[in-house]
Amino acid sequence: MADYREVTQEITQELTRTLSNISTHEVEQLTAEIQKAEKVFFVGVGRVLLSLKSIAKRLAHLGIKTYIVGQITEPAITEKDLLIVGSGSGETAFPLIIAKKAKQFNATVAHIGGNPQSSMRDYADLFVKIPVSTKLQLPGEIPSVQPMTSLFEQSLLILGDTIALLMVREKEMDMHALWKYHANLE
Amino acid sequence: MADYREVTQEITQELTRTLSNISTHEVEQLTAEIQKAEKVFFVGVGRVLLSLKSIAKRLAHLGIKTYIVGQITEPAITEKDLLIVGSGSGETAFPLIIAKKAKQFNATVAHIGGNPQSSMRDYADLFVKIPVSTKLQLPGEIPSVQPMTSLFEQSLLILGDTIALLMVREKEMDMHALWKYHANLE
Amino acid sequence: MADYREVTQEITQELTRTLSNISTHEVEQLTAEIQKAEKVFFVGVGRVLLSLKSIAKRLAHLGIKTYIVGQITEPAITEKDLLIVGSGSGETAFPLIIAKKAKQFNATVAHIGGNPQSSMRDYADLFVKIPVSTKLQLPGEIPSVQPMTSLFEQSLLILGDTIALLMVREKEMDMHALWKYHANLE
Amino acid sequence: MADYREVTQEITQELTRTLSNISTHEVEQLTAEIQKAEKVFFVGVGRVLLSLKSIAKRLAHLGIKTYIVGQITEPAITEKDLLIVGSGSGETAFPLIIAKKAKQFNATVAHIGGNPQSSMRDYADLFVKIPVSTKLQLPGEIPSVQPMTSLFEQSLLILGDTIALLMVREKEMDMHALWKYHANLE
Repeated sequence: MADYREVTQEITQELTRTLSNISTHEVEQLTAEIQKAEKVFFVGVGRVLLSLKSIAKRLAHLGIKTYIVGQITEPAITEKDLLIVGSGSGETAFPLIIAKKAKQFNATVAHIGGNPQSSMRDYADLFVKIPVSTKLQLPGEIPSVQPMTSLFEQSLLILGDTIALLMVREKEMDMHALWKYHANLE
Repeated sequence: MADYREVTQEITQELTRTLSNISTHEVEQLTAEIQKAEKVFFVGVGRVLLSLKSIAKRLAHLGIKTYIVGQITEPAITEKDLLIVGSGSGETAFPLIIAKKAKQFNATVAHIGGNPQSSMRDYADLFVKIPVSTKLQLPGEIPSVQPMTSLFEQSLLILGDTIALLMVREKEMDMHALWKYHANLE
Repeated sequence: MADYREVTQEITQELTRTLSNISTHEVEQLTAEIQKAEKVFFVGVGRVLLSLKSIAKRLAHLGIKTYIVGQITEPAITEKDLLIVGSGSGETAFPLIIAKKAKQFNATVAHIGGNPQSSMRDYADLFVKIPVSTKLQLPGEIPSVQPMTSLFEQSLLILGDTIALLMVREKEMDMHALWKYHANLE
Repeated sequence: MADYREVTQEITQELTRTLSNISTHEVEQLTAEIQKAEKVFFVGVGRVLLSLKSIAKRLAHLGIKTYIVGQITEPAITEKDLLIVGSGSGETAFPLIIAKKAKQFNATVAHIGGNPQSSMRDYADLFVKIPVSTKLQLPGEIPSVQPMTSLFEQSLLILGDTIALLMVREKEMDMHALWKYHANLE
């Protein structure tokens, strides 16, 4: 059997490399938009959506009003709001529809993806590139050691949690006090 | 093959009978608590949870702040809030835990169920009886023609929608205007 | 305050009328496709999706392999499978995309809706009409006493549960034995 | 503003350290149980549940039959099945109830957590320790730089994806071929 320690090291190495190659400027732009927005909506599919949900949950604990597109009690989006789209290829049908609609309501759209030249470009006001190989296998992409788009989904989660920690430090929040925003019924 | 028209008639008849046997007084109490609460939480499992989610979604369109226990961005419950528990038997483990916790935070707990003598009685401030046969097959229960607890889940949905319509009429809401509270990204 | 008993009677009356006006032939076609399919997929949004999930859950208890489009562990659709689309207007963007894709994989597509002349017509192999007023307010539609599309969502749930009961009777299933297919961890 | 690159480095460092301190033996035991099981169930709450769902989804692509406790079409658990519980503290109420029930049906229970001396010990057949600080702040725990239990949730996701990659290599799967198990309707 392949060795756990060796394999987990390969994964954390490619994850670390990917995260350190994200543009600081792009992350700062996204962070600023999150803090400026009245409400922050998230859209994605599959494991990407799961990473976005984790981000939405953590940011909610920091006092940001976050919503998942399609959730039971989703408010209307307005021009004061931000839509964060997670899509490695930038070609997934459902996020494209939602991004288009969000622009019709004059919301700001941020795309976190692997491919800056995607169809999502028509709707995105800002783009944060996670430099991983996408399903499209574009030239210059470093192939991941992992199956499918695992590396994108992992990087997305850690990127979101990095933004959360940046906000905690910038606002000098008391991390222990954060539990008060947390659901207390679980 | 059994005839569609005949079978759907049997179902709507038992549904109509069940709904007309719910106590007006109990429904009025529940409606008053929903309108008084700062936030309304819902808990249940399986198809009961799906009916509760539909109710939460409709009430949100009427301006009520509704949350499903366990949803991604669930706030903390307080003594100004209402927890609505859906449980036919009143013995389902997860709702019992949540109801107990909600009482620890001094929230109001409303139980919609089939059995007033259940364990949920220890936590519920009010009880709305949907008079259907429960899994426990208590004496005096009229057996449903349908499998499992379908009749309870159907009755729960229509009860919730009746409360919504009662609120629309009482407040003389413009039903067309309700769409403005609705998600606009779907 | 408007009276509970009166209002619930108005609702059950329009629900009963709607269900009794669905075509027996269309229901029989849909039931036959459900029984013929290797796997049955469901797609919809909002409260319509919640009704479809309830139907999927009940049919699963009858031994049908059911899946919600977008669920965590969703298999690939094939030409042996059925996609059931719930959409009152037949114009909702997400179900339209999914129906189009399902046809590309040669799956059978059944549309349950209010409007036979919708864009969904291009993809649907069969159509079951729930004769309710849609958001589009087509000529000849009887307006519902209820807000938004509640009547469609209620009718959809009861239609699904009627199909379940038709199957129980046709196959002479022992309704008590159905609990063995049920999740036992809740 | 705190610097993105610096902060993401702190996070990937503590993530890498945590993952490299998980016992190879415990991971091998868990991997063996996953491969032996007829069906694999997952239970957790909040962000832990989101990580578990990502794992379930990836393992499903490798041909493992995975289910989330509470999902719409959840089968009954049997003595041939595995329940994987994610809970940092091992004291969360809902996973404890489910683990207890799973043992009543003689399923195997694996607990992935931070605290080996928790109440979950009464039900768990095997334990995989993710060595992070838990909410309980046990002696000897290294505090995370991140708020709440982010480090646990991140480590859990990467642990699951490491197990997936171990299985891919052990079985010499063609990673490109994995897309055939993937949902094709998104």
